[in-house]
Amino acid sequence: MADWLAALDRRAELRARAGLTRRLRPRAAGDAVTDLAGNDYLGLARHPEVTAAAAKALTEYGLGATGSRLVRGSTEAHQELESALADWLGTERSLVFSSGYLANLGAIRGLVRPRTLLVSDAHNHASLIDGCRLSGAETVVTPHADPDAVAEVLATAEGRPAVVVTESVFSVDGDLAPLARLHAVTRRHGALLLVDEAHAVGVVGPGGAGGVAAAGLAGAPDVVLTATLSKALGGAGGVVAAPAGFVRHLIETGRTFIFDTALPPAIVAGVHAAVELARTGDDLRAELTDRVATAVHRLRAAGLTVSAPDAAVVSVTAPDPAAAVSWAADCADRAVAVGCFRPPSTPDNRSRLRLTVNAGVPRPDFDRALTTIVTCAPQEVL
Amino acid sequence: MADWLAALDRRAELRARAGLTRRLRPRAAGDAVTDLAGNDYLGLARHPEVTAAAAKALTEYGLGATGSRLVRGSTEAHQELESALADWLGTERSLVFSSGYLANLGAIRGLVRPRTLLVSDAHNHASLIDGCRLSGAETVVTPHADPDAVAEVLATAEGRPAVVVTESVFSVDGDLAPLARLHAVTRRHGALLLVDEAHAVGVVGPGGAGGVAAAGLAGAPDVVLTATLSKALGGAGGVVAAPAGFVRHLIETGRTFIFDTALPPAIVAGVHAAVELARTGDDLRAELTDRVATAVHRLRAAGLTVSAPDAAVVSVTAPDPAAAVSWAADCADRAVAVGCFRPPSTPDNRSRLRLTVNAGVPRPDFDRALTTIVTCAPQEVL
Ligand SMILES: Cc1ncc(COP(=O)(O)O)c(C=O)c1O
Ligand SMILES: Cc1ncc(COP(=O)(O)O)c(C=O)c1O
Repeated sequence: MADWLAALDRRAELRARAGLTRRLRPRAAGDAVTDLAGNDYLGLARHPEVTAAAAKALTEYGLGATGSRLVRGSTEAHQELESALADWLGTERSLVFSSGYLANLGAIRGLVRPRTLLVSDAHNHASLIDGCRLSGAETVVTPHADPDAVAEVLATAEGRPAVVVTESVFSVDGDLAPLARLHAVTRRHGALLLVDEAHAVGVVGPGGAGGVAAAGLAGAPDVVLTATLSKALGGAGGVVAAPAGFVRHLIETGRTFIFDTALPPAIVAGVHAAVELARTGDDLRAELTDRVATAVHRLRAAGLTVSAPDAAVVSVTAPDPAAAVSWAADCADRAVAVGCFRPPSTPDNRSRLRLTVNAGVPRPDFDRALTTIVTCAPQEVL
Repeated sequence: MADWLAALDRRAELRARAGLTRRLRPRAAGDAVTDLAGNDYLGLARHPEVTAAAAKALTEYGLGATGSRLVRGSTEAHQELESALADWLGTERSLVFSSGYLANLGAIRGLVRPRTLLVSDAHNHASLIDGCRLSGAETVVTPHADPDAVAEVLATAEGRPAVVVTESVFSVDGDLAPLARLHAVTRRHGALLLVDEAHAVGVVGPGGAGGVAAAGLAGAPDVVLTATLSKALGGAGGVVAAPAGFVRHLIETGRTFIFDTALPPAIVAGVHAAVELARTGDDLRAELTDRVATAVHRLRAAGLTVSAPDAAVVSVTAPDPAAAVSWAADCADRAVAVGCFRPPSTPDNRSRLRLTVNAGVPRPDFDRALTTIVTCAPQEVL
C-alpha cells in the first residue's frame, strides 16, 4: 500500500539522475520577464479588446458554463464563436471543446469506424497519440513528414477506412507538414486527413487561417481540422472544424464533448475577440515573420544549431537534458523565459531550447533576449 | 471519401428514429430560466466575490495562461488554488488540470504500473471509463456500489497491483458510493482507491470537503481524489488531490498535465474565491438539503419515481427517450431547465430527467419549477 509511494520515489530518483526532473515555477502576474516560452504568438492574451470581451461575458454569464454543452453549458457566446471559427477556417461548421487535448481525443475517435487504420506522424503531439490509443484503432506510425511512407502504409490497407493524422506546424521543431502532398496521397487512397493546426492558426495561411488554408485545402470534404484556442488566440479551449455531418456526429456521440463541462463563456468571448484581431492581423504576422528570421539569423551567426522554422516556433539544439535545463535557468535568471524540451517531450530524444516568438513583446526586449540566449549558451554548442 | 459523410448521415438517421438525437440549444446571458439542469449547486458561478476575483486576475494576467504548466502556464494563482484545495480536501498536495476529464485520464494512467488491475464501478462517468481504457490496464467492471463484488475481483488479483475506481456522488442518480466499505476492501487487499468527487465537493462532507472526507478517509495514503472545479465551485478545470509523491509523479510524467495548456488564471482565481465560499457555506448546504428533500417529497407525492439522493442530484424516471425529451422540452417552454438523460448517457439504458438543485436560484422560482415538472410529466409516469 504505502509501497506504491516508495516505488514512485524510486522512479523520481531515476529521473533526477537522468536530468529529467520537472518542477513548477509559478510566475507572478506582473513579472518583468521577456516571454519566449509561451504560445501567445500574436500577443492577444493581453489585448484590451480581448480582455474587455471576456470581462463583459464574465459579468453577463458568471464564471463557468455550469454544465456540459448539451445540458446547460451552451451559450450564445459559444455559438457565435463557432460560426466565426468556421467562417475563418473555411469549413462548414466548427465545434468548441474545453481544450485542444479533448478536441483531438474526440475528433480521432469520431473518425474511427470498424477496421479503420490510423496513420500517425512520428512527431505528433501527445494528444494525437492518446487520441489514436483511446480510439482503439490499429495505428501505424510513419516517419516524420513523409508522404511516400504514408502512401506505402495506405497501400497495405486497401479496402479499409483509413485516417492520416498530422500536425500542420509541429509543436517542437516548428516545421510545416507537407499538407498538399499528404492530401494528394490520402485522396488517392480514399482516406481522410486530420490536421492539428494548434501552432498554425493565427500564424500561417491567408488571414492566419492556418496550414490547411495555406495549402488550398480549406473546406475539403475529406479533411478535418483541429486547433487550440490557447495559443495565437490567447485563451483556452479547442475546436474541431469540419464538414457539418462530422460536427453533428461529434455533438451526438463524442464522449469528450458530451461528458465535459463547456468552456467558460468569458473565455469563449475573449477568444472570439481574438479571432477577429487575428483575422485582420497581417501586420502582427509580418512582425512575427521578421522576428523569427532575426532569431534564426542571430542564433546561427553565434554558432548555434537552429531549426528552419515555418511559423513562430524556433528550436535550438542543446547538448543534453542537464545542459538544456541550466541554459534555460540561466536565461530565466536574466528575466528571459525560454522553453526547455527534454525527453519524453521531444520526438527524437534530443534536448533543445524551444523559442516561441511573440509579436506582442516590445521589440527591444526581444532583441535583448536573443543576446541573453547566446550569452547563456553552453560552450559545447557554440 | 464523401461516402464517410453519407455513412454518418445514416447513423444520425438511426439515432433520430430511436429518439436519440441531441441538439445544442444555446442560452442567452440574461435568460429568465429557472436552472435545474446546471451543476452550479451553490450558486457560486455568479457570486460577486467569485466574478470579482476572476475579473482581477483577467486584468493582471490576461485571458489565457499562454502555455502548459511546466513551460509558461503556471502562475501564482495556480499555486495558491492548489494549496487551498489540498488544505480543504485534507490531502498533502493537489494539482489543477484544465478539466475534470483530463484530471481523471491523468490520475488513472498515473496509478497504473505493469500488471495493474483496474476495478471500475458500472456507473462510472465517461472520463473514468476513458481513463481506464487509455491506461491500457486490464479493467474489470463491477456491479454498481458493490464492495463484495470488488472484494471478489481483488481476491483474483493476488500479488498484482490493483486500483478501485469509483465516483463518490454518482452523476446520474446522485447516490453516494459506500466509500468506507470500499476502502476497507481495498486496504485489506493492498489496493488503491481512486474517488471522483465531481458532484460531492462543496456539497457533502464536513465543510463541503466531499465524500471521502465524510467517510473519514481524507489524507489516507492509499486514496487518490479527483474532482472538477466546474460544478459546485462554479468555474472550470479539474484537480487531483493526493499524497505529495503522487502529485509529483503527475507533474513529471502525466501526459494530460504536461502537454496541455494551463487553466486560465482568471478561472483559477474565481475558483479560488469559490473554494473559500464553499468551505464556509454550511448555510448554502443546509438550503440545498432542504430543497432536495422538498423536491423528492413533492415529486413522489405526484406519483413520480424519484431516486433517493445523497447530494444535490435528483433523478426522475421517464418512460422512454422520446418521452424524456418532450418532457424536458415542455419544461423548457415554461422557462424551467432540467437535464434529460438518455442512453448512452445513462448507466442502465433507462431515460430520466436529472434535476440538479441549485441553492442560488430564488426559492419561489425553485418551488414553481417543481410544479412545472409535475404539470409537464407524461401520463404514463404519474
Ligand atoms: C500540437 C498540439 N495539439 C494539441 C495541443 C493541446 O491543446 P490544449 O493545450 O488546448 O489542450 C497542443 C498544446 O498544448 C499542441 O501543441
Ligand atoms: C463524475 C464526473 N467526473 C468528471 C467529470 C468531468 O469534469 P469536467 O466537466 O470538469 O471535465 C464530470 C462532468 O462533467 C462528472 O460528472
